[in-house]
Amino acid sequence: MILGIDFGGTKVALGLADDAGTLLATRRLDTDAEAGAEQVVTRALAGAKALAADEGARVDSVGVVSPGIVLEDRILLAPNVPGWEQLHLRSLVAAEFGGVPIATGTDAKAAALAEWEFGTLAGADPAVFLSLGTGIAAAVLIGGVVLAGANGAAGEIGYNLLTPQDTDGFASGSAPLEEAVGGRGLGRRAAELLGRPVTAASLFALARENTQAKELVTSALDELSMHVANLAIAFDPSRIAVGGGLVRSADVLLPVLRDRLAGAVPFPPELVAARFDQDASLLGAVALAMRLGTGG
Amino acid sequence: MILGIDFGGTKVALGLADDAGTLLATRRLDTDAEAGAEQVVTRALAGAKALAADEGARVDSVGVVSPGIVLEDRILLAPNVPGWEQLHLRSLVAAEFGGVPIATGTDAKAAALAEWEFGTLAGADPAVFLSLGTGIAAAVLIGGVVLAGANGAAGEIGYNLLTPQDTDGFASGSAPLEEAVGGRGLGRRAAELLGRPVTAASLFALARENTQAKELVTSALDELSMHVANLAIAFDPSRIAVGGGLVRSADVLLPVLRDRLAGAVPFPPELVAARFDQDASLLGAVALAMRLGTGG
Repeated sequence: MILGIDFGGTKVALGLADDAGTLLATRRLDTDAEAGAEQVVTRALAGAKALAADEGARVDSVGVVSPGIVLEDRILLAPNVPGWEQLHLRSLVAAEFGGVPIATGTDAKAAALAEWEFGTLAGADPAVFLSLGTGIAAAVLIGGVVLAGANGAAGEIGYNLLTPQDTDGFASGSAPLEEAVGGRGLGRRAAELLGRPVTAASLFALARENTQAKELVTSALDELSMHVANLAIAFDPSRIAVGGGLVRSADVLLPVLRDRLAGAVPFPPELVAARFDQDASLLGAVALAMRLGTGG
Repeated sequence: MILGIDFGGTKVALGLADDAGTLLATRRLDTDAEAGAEQVVTRALAGAKALAADEGARVDSVGVVSPGIVLEDRILLAPNVPGWEQLHLRSLVAAEFGGVPIATGTDAKAAALAEWEFGTLAGADPAVFLSLGTGIAAAVLIGGVVLAGANGAAGEIGYNLLTPQDTDGFASGSAPLEEAVGGRGLGRRAAELLGRPVTAASLFALARENTQAKELVTSALDELSMHVANLAIAFDPSRIAVGGGLVRSADVLLPVLRDRLAGAVPFPPELVAARFDQDASLLGAVALAMRLGTGG
């Protein structure tokens, strides 16, 4: 059996899959980010052992995904859990699951791989997966292989600049596009505007009746759709799949993105909602583990 | 010997190269775009025959590049020469050089290949070539292979949208980024501003003393550098080479681009001036022909 572990900013998902990548059992636990990085990993690995024991399963390989770029001795571009960037993730996993092959990767890139292996991106080349949630990121598959880039950071479009005058970017600790249209930034601005706590998901619902909410959603989608169009111009993909929390507002989100692609991109790609919702990155962890033996 | 032909909007370049890709003889002729597409090709092929005869060379393979996407029976995204999009370029070349292998390709993508094979992009992965001239385009090499995209249109960033409100794009006949920062658009706006004909090249020189010219150059470079930074975020390249006419103003252009990359991109790539200037696409045609036998 394949064990998948998906570390997220708020939840950790654990899953056992057969060798075709079908999830047979899953569990979730809270990240409890404020308590630090090590405790998350310790609890997750204990939970994974318990899950395997309860299912009577032998773990033959492990796939682990996380936000950021997972290196041997640290994790880059993953500031949301205190201490996460200093984590020796692979060796912690190996200490619990020694002797079996372990794959590690970035969650959005793994989710893209899952959509390519099991979901809506099958056969698309290039294929783009957009992860629109708390974080904003893209992953691009070329010939079925996720583009890593020179440093593993390809597709990290949350750092995109918004205007020609924009001087705040990665070097000054900003992620301009993510702050403008990511779930957290949207929720914060909605709360300021409306004077009460509002999540990004409820903001989209509110926008049907509330003018201020509608303006906020419209301006965010105009911004986002411009960046998606420019990304599509750069890669000329045949298909884009949209995943992440914002896709729960697909009825509003997808038509805006489709219109922008149709207007701006020489060969507008298909745009679809991703098949996998909460399990996307977990399935990606499984898909990474499945590729361990194949050199892919 | 390898024959290279580079069809451009104002000039056609012909070259004979040895099997290492070294140009041994070159000729140039005017495109004379107003007189239409067929006459350019007829004159270029006659010129190529004459060049080979004068050099006593046997042509073993031919590489032909042009703006746009060269298909069997037409050329897409190449509006600058009347009739060019209806051209059966490959069969016209085959009629003159029957029996030898012929490669066709897009000029900016071929120039990128030349920089990778013979120039400043050797070993860079991903490698980005920026063509900043009359037209604005990029070409990306991944593992030494130019990314074509699903329709051959990857990297056509001249079509990039500029603002979230931008509704004029490819579908309405616009190329927003190219019109804003390409040589032709810059020259036109400079002429309007200064009340006399100004080329993009002389605009950069003028900007050292003339405030209006300086403002125009600054705003164009701010715009361009934002798009280059966002492109670098998308691909995470290890190196970017800048070619095209605007690179003759490299002393002004490159520092602005480097600053923007340093501020915005998680792993800022090296940025260098391309090795090849006028001959970049011609060498690209030769490099395409050299790959004919290798499956690459």
